Amino acid sequence: MTEMARSMHNLIPASRGTEPADIVYRNAEIFDAFSCSWEHNDLAVKSGIIVGIGQSYRGISERDLCGAHLVPGLIDAHVHIESSLLVPYEYARLVASRGTTTVIADPHEIANVAGVAGIEYMLAARTGAPVDILYMLPSCVPATPLDIGGARLDAGLLSRFVGRAGVIGLGEMMNVPGVLGGDKEVLEKLSLSGIRDGHAPLLSGMDLNAYILAGLDSDHECITQNEAEEKLRRGMYIFVREGSTEKNIEAIVPMITPYNVCRCSFSTDDCHADLLFREGHIDRCIRKAISCGLEPELAIRMATLSAAERFGLSDRGALSPGRRADFCIIDSPRTFRVKETFFLGSPVSAYTDAPSVSFLSSSIRCTTPSPEQIRLSGHSLARVIGLVPGQIVTASLTYDLGTSAIPDTIRDLLKVVVCNRYGRGLVGTGIVHGFEFKRGAIAASVSHDAHNIVATGTSDTAILAAIETVIRTGGGMAAVNGHEVTVLPLDCAGLMSSLPASEVTAKLDALGKATTEMGGITDPFMYLSFLALTVIPALRITDRGLFDGVAFRDVPVFYGNDVSP
Amino acid sequence: MTEMARSMHNLIPASRGTEPADIVYRNAEIFDAFSCSWEHNDLAVKSGIIVGIGQSYRGISERDLCGAHLVPGLIDAHVHIESSLLVPYEYARLVASRGTTTVIADPHEIANVAGVAGIEYMLAARTGAPVDILYMLPSCVPATPLDIGGARLDAGLLSRFVGRAGVIGLGEMMNVPGVLGGDKEVLEKLSLSGIRDGHAPLLSGMDLNAYILAGLDSDHECITQNEAEEKLRRGMYIFVREGSTEKNIEAIVPMITPYNVCRCSFSTDDCHADLLFREGHIDRCIRKAISCGLEPELAIRMATLSAAERFGLSDRGALSPGRRADFCIIDSPRTFRVKETFFLGSPVSAYTDAPSVSFLSSSIRCTTPSPEQIRLSGHSLARVIGLVPGQIVTASLTYDLGTSAIPDTIRDLLKVVVCNRYGRGLVGTGIVHGFEFKRGAIAASVSHDAHNIVATGTSDTAILAAIETVIRTGGGMAAVNGHEVTVLPLDCAGLMSSLPASEVTAKLDALGKATTEMGGITDPFMYLSFLALTVIPALRITDRGLFDGVAFRDVPVFYGNDVSP
Repeated sequence: MTEMARSMHNLIPASRGTEPADIVYRNAEIFDAFSCSWEHNDLAVKSGIIVGIGQSYRGISERDLCGAHLVPGLIDAHVHIESSLLVPYEYARLVASRGTTTVIADPHEIANVAGVAGIEYMLAARTGAPVDILYMLPSCVPATPLDIGGARLDAGLLSRFVGRAGVIGLGEMMNVPGVLGGDKEVLEKLSLSGIRDGHAPLLSGMDLNAYILAGLDSDHECITQNEAEEKLRRGMYIFVREGSTEKNIEAIVPMITPYNVCRCSFSTDDCHADLLFREGHIDRCIRKAISCGLEPELAIRMATLSAAERFGLSDRGALSPGRRADFCIIDSPRTFRVKETFFLGSPVSAYTDAPSVSFLSSSIRCTTPSPEQIRLSGHSLARVIGLVPGQIVTASLTYDLGTSAIPDTIRDLLKVVVCNRYGRGLVGTGIVHGFEFKRGAIAASVSHDAHNIVATGTSDTAILAAIETVIRTGGGMAAVNGHEVTVLPLDCAGLMSSLPASEVTAKLDALGKATTEMGGITDPFMYLSFLALTVIPALRITDRGLFDGVAFRDVPVFYGNDVSP
Repeated sequence: MTEMARSMHNLIPASRGTEPADIVYRNAEIFDAFSCSWEHNDLAVKSGIIVGIGQSYRGISERDLCGAHLVPGLIDAHVHIESSLLVPYEYARLVASRGTTTVIADPHEIANVAGVAGIEYMLAARTGAPVDILYMLPSCVPATPLDIGGARLDAGLLSRFVGRAGVIGLGEMMNVPGVLGGDKEVLEKLSLSGIRDGHAPLLSGMDLNAYILAGLDSDHECITQNEAEEKLRRGMYIFVREGSTEKNIEAIVPMITPYNVCRCSFSTDDCHADLLFREGHIDRCIRKAISCGLEPELAIRMATLSAAERFGLSDRGALSPGRRADFCIIDSPRTFRVKETFFLGSPVSAYTDAPSVSFLSSSIRCTTPSPEQIRLSGHSLARVIGLVPGQIVTASLTYDLGTSAIPDTIRDLLKVVVCNRYGRGLVGTGIVHGFEFKRGAIAASVSHDAHNIVATGTSDTAILAAIETVIRTGGGMAAVNGHEVTVLPLDCAGLMSSLPASEVTAKLDALGKATTEMGGITDPFMYLSFLALTVIPALRITDRGLFDGVAFRDVPVFYGNDVSP
């Protein structure tokens, strides 16, 4: 007999009621995702599978839920686990406690750092987690041909992972020009799987048609209702995103109706551990959507069956016979606080021992730059990267520095340094405005997408000390203020911490306290981590120096060193 | 490059509008299946694929639709093509003219007659048809271990077809006791594919749960709203059936809402050519559903995107970039008359030449029985099969025959004969009430599920002449009234005619005229074709003789020949 036939043979008697189930949950308000309604009934589980709903089931054990509401385990349609700063097991423990039982994850960050080995690590790290982590293969490593980190993944390398357990498709295709230009390598990647996630911010009209024609039939980048409506109408599944910095629920929710809810899901994309720890995960998205006026039943449908259907996961997303016993008990549909989560029939609170997966080595293979390497030579008119509050885009500013030195804390002009972490000896230095530090420096090995070490601060000495701290720690986030050094070690590939979420949150709090004492803005590490992302306008810093994200070329800091200002 | 990459490379420029499309349909009301609404716009097609919707497209040719309504090609979620009496190509031409562009067909009848060769024929016959015919492998050949026709298909034989072009899943699993009993062979069949259609008339409660748990997540047998609601709630896709004799739309439609429409589709199951020719196919179902109060947009959604989604066919079911250019022009949403159908961008009216597929030989390998072989020996109390008007169930009647001969046209008691068509020399004879013939006889090689030759009539001579006619014709339906012989030859496996639908309809009309002149009820061939179906209560006739479909055993015609009455 096949494994599936054996499993059915084992479960059918319990499903028919001729044998007892493992456990029967009695007296529940059970969410019916197929018709978006509630049903007062009992739910029977055996071997981690829902064997039936009905009041005639007997169980080896039984539990009276006293009328509590039961909903299917929540599903995140698109997330980068690395952005939480937690390793997959700790991430899973955290989000499971908030009702999540499946995440569709794109290991884009670790793949940029460690390539095939990074994906292998993420696959190994699925084992034993209280959440089913399913991967979409990272389609854009590196993000641009200019922006090479630790790896380059072509269609051939990615194809090795097709068909592997835990791999279900191709992750967000950010190379929109490559798709529209019919780039051979991009099209080969799109041929790897029938499930391909899109990433098409603001794309519209004929170019949107062409992008969808190429098979990219989902999007998590909509920021307006019009944008989401056009994409839905042209065949895209809409993942409404609510991350740490990208918050789209309020704008998008008004377009969701009973007619189209089956094509809409939630995505958290990038969320730091502290937000997940304090405010929740997909449960937070549901509460937010309800507060924006969405019927609770539609919000729950989005977070469960709609996401499952989009990815062809017929074994989950609803509470019906033969599906995984992934579900959670909530206080009420409208307030949606998760009280208890079950993963394959077991309470997720029982998951306390991390499995023995060897963490990926840190891949920090550089030494601290010399003071000479971060010296800026030039004067008068300079290009300055301007932070934009609440956004990852930057402004391209021009300052007349005269002969004044950088840093200039009066005008808030600080040095920003990117140091190649892969041992290539490259160091780029620029000027940034907006961090507001009065003393000290910060550095981090999280720096999209190549994840080199990036640092800024009020003196060369402090900047080099912060970089030194990150290197000595084997990757992490560091704040250096005189003799006070605060660090969150990111021992897994320099991107994730193996500590539990509560400890990572405490260390993030300590970093926040330190940077505030240094006079800095809120969340400086978040802004810092995007300063090297060359695919976003306007001005960026890489390990080669300043980069013009509009003209898409390297540029010098001082106009005097340029051909023309 | 992969084929898919090449295809994208070819289409992307037209999709972006940098090259002209093959044709642009201007000024249409385009159905948006994703939000169940209409959009006034233009639709561009290239190489049979929709490349875009929008008013900036140019085409090598253009056509002004003057505001006509455009809907995606209609999809039949479950059908037996053989029941139309047409070969696949002629069937496709007929239903295509009514707006259908995809059918999910279960070649259950021909597989019972010709096994693997029958399925191979149906697969070959897909080629060149103006409808995409996709097959679900017949899961129950033979229908019961007692009822063996021309083949026995176990999981091993079926597995040869898994992965073949045109095969998308496992067809309706009618062996409900086998599923519930955990029968090894049945479970092996269920393991063959992730898409498995159910068939569970009246199944409810825990047994329904167990049937669904086994992976059977669709049903086309619901006859009441309650039944459909329970099945939907437990995770089944509901195919609302409207066949020649099984009409369920009126009862089921009231439960369909915007919340669950994505889980509901239409099925025609068994429809003769004359019904399809005169009243239509899925277009008929849509009109019927609308007349029963369903919003037109929900009815169209059922017939398009919902069916496509159920079968994982992301390349159709909606008018959006990258999908097949399968669509039709209708007069208006509410009246829903199809005016023109396009299959992969070409008008289906252009399909006039049948492809050269060798028809399957008739597999009629028997000779006409001798008068002795159909003689009934016995007297007094007899078991009589009673027709039930409008149903395929029969009544088990008892008549005191005394010493009177059969046929007894006064009491409407006629002989019914089943003659094994596969050359096994078996002949069974019984008595039937309800056909009302006063003269002549009819015979047919369509007789579910083994498709032996079945006949009834007012004299042994006429019965044998009708059987003789069917055999001589190589399979068909025959009415014999003295010297008048009317025949519809079914030259393909004794089940289907290679004639066009109009001619088959004319011959069915001639047969109807002949049987009416013989004094018979309407549609006698339909009733006759189900008399041998042992899986339906109460009394049946097989090539072994009378069969009690409740006790599930052979029984003698006369009680005197039995152990006890």
